[in-house]
Amino acid sequence: MSDAGEVEGVDAAVIGEKVAAAREAVAAGDADAWLSVGRETDVSPEPCFPYLLGFDVVWPTAVVVAPDSSAVVLGRHDAPTARDLGVHDVRAYDESIAEPLREVLDEMNAERVALNYDRDDVVADGLSHGLFLQLREYLPDREFTSASDLIRRLRGVKSDTEYERVRAAATETEELLQTATATWTPETTEREFADFLHERMTERGLDSAWAWDYCPTVHMGDREVGHTLPADHTVDEGELLHVDFGIRRDGYASDIQRLWVRGEASDGLRTAFRDVRAAIDTGHDALGPGAVGHEVDAAAREEPTSRGWPAFEHAFGHQVGRAAHDGGTLLGPEWERYGEAPRHEVRPGEVYTMELGVATEWGYVGQEEMVRITETGTEWVVPPQTELRTL
Amino acid sequence: MSDAGEVEGVDAAVIGEKVAAAREAVAAGDADAWLSVGRETDVSPEPCFPYLLGFDVVWPTAVVVAPDSSAVVLGRHDAPTARDLGVHDVRAYDESIAEPLREVLDEMNAERVALNYDRDDVVADGLSHGLFLQLREYLPDREFTSASDLIRRLRGVKSDTEYERVRAAATETEELLQTATATWTPETTEREFADFLHERMTERGLDSAWAWDYCPTVHMGDREVGHTLPADHTVDEGELLHVDFGIRRDGYASDIQRLWVRGEASDGLRTAFRDVRAAIDTGHDALGPGAVGHEVDAAAREEPTSRGWPAFEHAFGHQVGRAAHDGGTLLGPEWERYGEAPRHEVRPGEVYTMELGVATEWGYVGQEEMVRITETGTEWVVPPQTELRTL
Repeated sequence: MSDAGEVEGVDAAVIGEKVAAAREAVAAGDADAWLSVGRETDVSPEPCFPYLLGFDVVWPTAVVVAPDSSAVVLGRHDAPTARDLGVHDVRAYDESIAEPLREVLDEMNAERVALNYDRDDVVADGLSHGLFLQLREYLPDREFTSASDLIRRLRGVKSDTEYERVRAAATETEELLQTATATWTPETTEREFADFLHERMTERGLDSAWAWDYCPTVHMGDREVGHTLPADHTVDEGELLHVDFGIRRDGYASDIQRLWVRGEASDGLRTAFRDVRAAIDTGHDALGPGAVGHEVDAAAREEPTSRGWPAFEHAFGHQVGRAAHDGGTLLGPEWERYGEAPRHEVRPGEVYTMELGVATEWGYVGQEEMVRITETGTEWVVPPQTELRTL
Repeated sequence: MSDAGEVEGVDAAVIGEKVAAAREAVAAGDADAWLSVGRETDVSPEPCFPYLLGFDVVWPTAVVVAPDSSAVVLGRHDAPTARDLGVHDVRAYDESIAEPLREVLDEMNAERVALNYDRDDVVADGLSHGLFLQLREYLPDREFTSASDLIRRLRGVKSDTEYERVRAAATETEELLQTATATWTPETTEREFADFLHERMTERGLDSAWAWDYCPTVHMGDREVGHTLPADHTVDEGELLHVDFGIRRDGYASDIQRLWVRGEASDGLRTAFRDVRAAIDTGHDALGPGAVGHEVDAAAREEPTSRGWPAFEHAFGHQVGRAAHDGGTLLGPEWERYGEAPRHEVRPGEVYTMELGVATEWGYVGQEEMVRITETGTEWVVPPQTELRTL
């Protein structure tokens, strides 16, 4: 390793930006310090560690962020990597994390400590129940509170480096889809179309934005839509090719849907495309800084049902970042399974999908676009699909 | 998808074996049912889900195993995949998991419910604190207990299919190392050696057993050992090449260390190799069904210190399965950071590493072997390294 404060393979640029943002967020919040704890992170990842640490740890490891400082308490073996990162005060231990962790919190005068638990938001819920019980024992006098709001801000609001990566991932996703449709023939099956994309991704060293086998999801013609694997279907004349696809490059994801028709689209198909497009546009009009998640969802959702389509069964939009489903504020209905996620306000710097679809006899008319929230409105991450493309 | 009860990409063979074993383990334990809960598992994996379900889920999902039956409660979108798996009674929901989950537990007469939390064992601690709080609210009248013992048994004791995969992974790891050393030259750097292995793994579609950048860990000559990345070092005459390496194929991992000397080994190096080998052999003699983890560790650990070497700073052995560090019983000292893990008894069917090392002026003399516990003793997963190999 070099002595230049850089750790090979660790994303020191992003971590520096995010830890600085975390210290500001802690200063603005009502906890004295933010404590993230994880162990064996290749088996059980702590979703905040990539922002705070950037490498896997084996022994119990704590990252503590206060308004004026930050520290990491970790096993002696991992200490050199943490020192080379050059972001945190490093405290190495041999047998137990308890005592050095108490010392760090004492030095920070941290009585009220925010922990990573949340009933609804998976990325703010990285603390296991077993580790919670351990912290309760190690820190009996501290007051614990949820770090949800802090994490929502930190993860949602993208730094410049982060947004550049999301945009690059989305741009390459579009380019891959164009390459794939350029080689499409009437004999191409869903599976072959997916295999083609997987081969290009492997060549380029790209990960899929969600589970490899289901990314891309490819639907040809009129068949059941869901978490289904590509099969032996092909596209008949007048039918749709529908693809839901995203990649992950440099640690950041994309998530878009695109539609192609083989030959001439029927009037009915054109109507369905227009109606879904209208829902996206209506949601887009309602989206911007200060908008509340479920209100954006309601505006978009009403559009197709008012035109006689069945209700859309999912949230209208989710955030994209390190993960395709990146947690935090959701543009979704106030259904119990979404909990508090749709009740938060949208912030500048967040990146959302806008997504809706209807089933038709020609195939699934699903559209999904990506937008960034600006100080005054939104901007497209990549240009939206405003017309049916032809195969 | 086919109608044959097989789910492409899902490991139905292993899941069938493991769910049957889980039902037996629940029958033998003191809980009425075992409840595993997860959501957005591509962001936050539930370590038991690969044994019980085998596919990623987005919405909150519960797998309930009772002595005579098992059920999965999951979002409607994921239900077809669960039905095709053909292992569990499938209950789909649209808005909330709460009511169907209560119904399943009522039908099973499950008052005492085992949950996946454990202070020490990461693979038995898959329940997040936020989901625990949600379960406490959804199921106010149930008694909760830890599923640790059940998971330790289920995960540790390998089915025939599982063991065959671990063995295949270990065999291929040895073969890859032989291929790499066959192309080694005195100019080969650590980084080039690691890159060679990574290229072969990519060609063969193999994952690394732990974080890609650190797997293999390659040390050439006398340099600091730790979680360090391969660098520009080469092996001088009389020095060591030390490699810590494992792969994951068909979902199962390997983890071994091998040693080569360039040219002639000095007497000091031979002595160090012999002393480490003696520790492995002493630990091996102490290992077998019914052995207690920390007693095996103590036997092995005493060997090099009695010969004047500094104390080994890690556990002597860990289990290998889906993960290289597979949790459960540990062959380790009773240090606080290991918690209860070294206090359990070794069971037939479990697979352990045996590992120890000392730093010398010629390089790190680290050895790591893999053994399976049988009804009467142990058997090697792959033949051990009993002599220094020559480059």
